Amino acid sequence: MEMRIGKEERNCKKTGVIGEPKQEMKWLKAASKEIIECIKDAMNLLDMEEVERLIDMLLNAKNRKIFIVGMGRSGFVARAFALRLMNLGFNVYFLGETITPAAGKGDRLIAISGTGTTKMILTASLAAKDIGAKVIAVTSFPESPLGQLADLIVTIKGRTKAAMPVEEDYLARQLIGERAPLTPLGSIFENNTMVFLDSLIVELMHRMGRTEADLKRRHATLE
Amino acid sequence: MEMRIGKEERNCKKTGVIGEPKQEMKWLKAASKEIIECIKDAMNLLDMEEVERLIDMLLNAKNRKIFIVGMGRSGFVARAFALRLMNLGFNVYFLGETITPAAGKGDRLIAISGTGTTKMILTASLAAKDIGAKVIAVTSFPESPLGQLADLIVTIKGRTKAAMPVEEDYLARQLIGERAPLTPLGSIFENNTMVFLDSLIVELMHRMGRTEADLKRRHATLE
Amino acid sequence: MEMRIGKEERNCKKTGVIGEPKQEMKWLKAASKEIIECIKDAMNLLDMEEVERLIDMLLNAKNRKIFIVGMGRSGFVARAFALRLMNLGFNVYFLGETITPAAGKGDRLIAISGTGTTKMILTASLAAKDIGAKVIAVTSFPESPLGQLADLIVTIKGRTKAAMPVEEDYLARQLIGERAPLTPLGSIFENNTMVFLDSLIVELMHRMGRTEADLKRRHATLE
Amino acid sequence: MEMRIGKEERNCKKTGVIGEPKQEMKWLKAASKEIIECIKDAMNLLDMEEVERLIDMLLNAKNRKIFIVGMGRSGFVARAFALRLMNLGFNVYFLGETITPAAGKGDRLIAISGTGTTKMILTASLAAKDIGAKVIAVTSFPESPLGQLADLIVTIKGRTKAAMPVEEDYLARQLIGERAPLTPLGSIFENNTMVFLDSLIVELMHRMGRTEADLKRRHATLE
Repeated sequence: MEMRIGKEERNCKKTGVIGEPKQEMKWLKAASKEIIECIKDAMNLLDMEEVERLIDMLLNAKNRKIFIVGMGRSGFVARAFALRLMNLGFNVYFLGETITPAAGKGDRLIAISGTGTTKMILTASLAAKDIGAKVIAVTSFPESPLGQLADLIVTIKGRTKAAMPVEEDYLARQLIGERAPLTPLGSIFENNTMVFLDSLIVELMHRMGRTEADLKRRHATLE
Repeated sequence: MEMRIGKEERNCKKTGVIGEPKQEMKWLKAASKEIIECIKDAMNLLDMEEVERLIDMLLNAKNRKIFIVGMGRSGFVARAFALRLMNLGFNVYFLGETITPAAGKGDRLIAISGTGTTKMILTASLAAKDIGAKVIAVTSFPESPLGQLADLIVTIKGRTKAAMPVEEDYLARQLIGERAPLTPLGSIFENNTMVFLDSLIVELMHRMGRTEADLKRRHATLE
Repeated sequence: MEMRIGKEERNCKKTGVIGEPKQEMKWLKAASKEIIECIKDAMNLLDMEEVERLIDMLLNAKNRKIFIVGMGRSGFVARAFALRLMNLGFNVYFLGETITPAAGKGDRLIAISGTGTTKMILTASLAAKDIGAKVIAVTSFPESPLGQLADLIVTIKGRTKAAMPVEEDYLARQLIGERAPLTPLGSIFENNTMVFLDSLIVELMHRMGRTEADLKRRHATLE
Repeated sequence: MEMRIGKEERNCKKTGVIGEPKQEMKWLKAASKEIIECIKDAMNLLDMEEVERLIDMLLNAKNRKIFIVGMGRSGFVARAFALRLMNLGFNVYFLGETITPAAGKGDRLIAISGTGTTKMILTASLAAKDIGAKVIAVTSFPESPLGQLADLIVTIKGRTKAAMPVEEDYLARQLIGERAPLTPLGSIFENNTMVFLDSLIVELMHRMGRTEADLKRRHATLE
C-alpha cells in the first residue's frame, strides 16, 4: 500500500532520488491541517460577549468555589483547565475526584460537554442550580439540555450533529463502546476547547494583574 | 482599566458607534494566535522518520501491551491519546490507574514529558527497559534523560528551557507549587502534543484500513 | 474536657500514678470494637450460596471481561478488589477510568453499592444488561433497584436505612455535600465489603490452584 | 475438586443430613477470621500516645492544609480517609489528584505506606519537610526511610518483612507486576489501616464536638 513506506523508499528520500512525489504521512498532515483550521475558526467564531461574561463570573468568584465537570476526553481538557485556574489562585475543584467539597449559593459550575447531553453532567448541573450555584456551559450546542439549564453558555464550535452519541450516560457509553468518530472532526471539540481555555487563562492572568514574576513571588512567600 | 469593557462600551459596539479601536480580549486573541502558530510550527518541524518509526512500533505491537505515562497537563493529553488508541483496538493502559498489568518483553511504553526530566516517568521508563519493553519518548528535548534512555524519540517542539521546572518529582512539584508559566508558551507543549497525537490517530486509522463504518460494525458484532 | 489528655496526665500514666481510670481514646476504641463486631456479623451472615454463585461467575469468566463499578468510599474498596482480581490473572476493568473497553455478551459487571440506589451505577448496570453482560450486585439491600435488576445479589450487611442518601446521583451528592454518617455504622458497609472481598480473593486463589509461588513464577516467566 | 460444592451437597446441608464435615468456603472463612484477628491485634497494639499526637496535629491544623498520600491499595484506603476528613471540615487534599495546591510551612502531610519505602511517597515527604510542613507516617515499619524522616509515626501492625516489595517505585512496580502476596497477610495493612482511620474519624468527630445533627445543620445553612 502506498502509505506503507518501506526502508528503501526512506533511503531513496535521503539520497535524494528524484521520483514520484512522496505522500509521507498524508493523513496525519491532512488531519493536522484540518484541526488547525478548525481551531482558528472556533476562535474566530467565539462570541466575545459570552467570554466577557464568563470572565466576569470567574473574577467575581474569587472567594467562592469553582467546580469543573467533564467526561472522557473533554474531561481531560477540563482537568487541564482546572489545574491552570488553581495556578491563578482560584478555589477550584474537579467534580468526581476524591476531594470535592459541597457547593453553596453563588458558587460556579463550569460544565464542559461538546454535545450538551451527557447525563452525569446534566444531573450535576441541575443539582448545582438547586443549590443556587451558577452553571456555565461550554458546549457546541447552546440549544442542548445543558445549554437550556445553564446561566451562561460559551459556544465552542466543534462537535457536529453527526458526532453525537446516542447513549447519554458516560459509564454506559464506556460499556457499550460508543465514542466520537476518530476523524479530525471527532476530536475537534476537545482541541478547540483546549486552545480556548489556555488562551482564556492568559487573558485572566492579565486582567488579574498577575505577571509570572508575581506568581513566583507569591509562591516563594507562601511559606 | 481599558480591558474591562463595561456595558456601555459593548452597547456602543453593537450600535456601531465609531471611535477608538476596540481591544476586546486582547490577550486571549493574542494568546490563541500564538498557540495556533506554535502548533503549525510544531507540525511542520515534525521529523517524519521519527513518526514513521513510532507508527511501525505501534502497528507491530497489536498483540502486545502499550503503556502510556505522563504527569499533570501532559498526563491529561496522554490519557486522551490512550483512549483513542483503545478505540482503534490497541491493548493500551495508562500507568498509575488502578488496572495496569505487568509489562513484558516487547511491550511498549510511550512516555510523554515536555522536559524529559520528570522523575516518576524516568523511573518507570528504566523499569520498562529492564523488562525488555521498548520506550518511546515524546518530548521537546531529545538530549534529556528521558530522550537518552528511550529507544525512539519523537521530538515535539514546545517546552522551552526557561519553562523547565527545577523539581523533577511530580508529587513534590505539586507540594512546592511549581508549574509551567501561564503564558501561551507555558502551555504549548500540551497543545502541540494533543494536535500531533490526534492527527496520528487519523493516520493510524487509515494505515490499519479502518474506516469509521468498520469500527461501528466491529462494535455492533462484538456482542 | 476529659478527653483532651494533657502532657502531665500522660506523664502520670507513665509513672504509674494511681487515680481515676483513664478513658484514653474512648470513642476510637468503642468505634473500632463496633466495626470489628460488625465485620464478624457480616461475615457470619454471608449467604454462602450467593458467594458460591459469585465464584462460579468469576471462574467461568476467565476469558471474558470483568467490569467493576462503585462510587465514593465503596469505589475505593471496589478498586482495591479490582487490583487483586488483576493480580489473579482476571481480565478486569474499573468503570470510569481512562481505559475501559466496551463490554460484550457474557461479560460481568460487579456493582458495589451499599444502598443499591446510586444512579450512575444503576444506569451502567442497565446498559450492561442490554448488552447481555451479567450484573452482580454487592449491596446491603437485595430489594433495592440495583438488586432488582441484578443477575446475582451478594448481600453484605452494613448500610442501614437511616444511612441512605436522598440524592441518588453521585456527582450531585458531592455538590450538595450529602454523605453517610461519620459514626462507625456510617462506614461499616465499606469495611465489611473490604474484608469480604479480600477473603474472597484468598478463596479464589486456592480454587484456581494458584499459590503465591506459582504467581511469582508466572511473573518471572512472562518476559 | 473437594472445594467445588455441588447443589446436592448444599441441599444436604440444608436438610441437615449428617455426614462428612462440610468445608464450604474453607479458605474464605479462614481468611476472614485471620483478617479480623489481625485487625483486633493491630488496634490493641496501637500506641495511643502516637495517636494522641496525630489527633493534636490534626486538630491544630484546622486552618492549615492537610495532604494525604498513598499508592495502590493503601492509596485507596488513604482516599477513603481523606474524604472523611473533608466531611469533618478539614482542608484536605489527596496528592496526585488534579487539584492539589502548594503546601506551606505548618501544613501536614499524612503518608500512608505499609513498608515505608515507596519512592514517590518518600520524595513527596522530603519535599514537604523542605517546605516546613509536618510529615506523619502511617506505616508498619517505624525504622523505614519514611519513618526516619517523619515528624510523627503512627505504627500500624500489618505489613511483614516477607511481604516487602523489592522495587520501591510505584509505577515501576506496576510495570514489573510486583505486588503484596494475595494471602490474608498480604492485604492486612490496608484492612488494619482502614479500621484504624475510620475509628479515628469517630474520635475526631467527638473531640471536635460535632454530632451528626450538627454536621447536617452545617450543610443545610451553608447555602
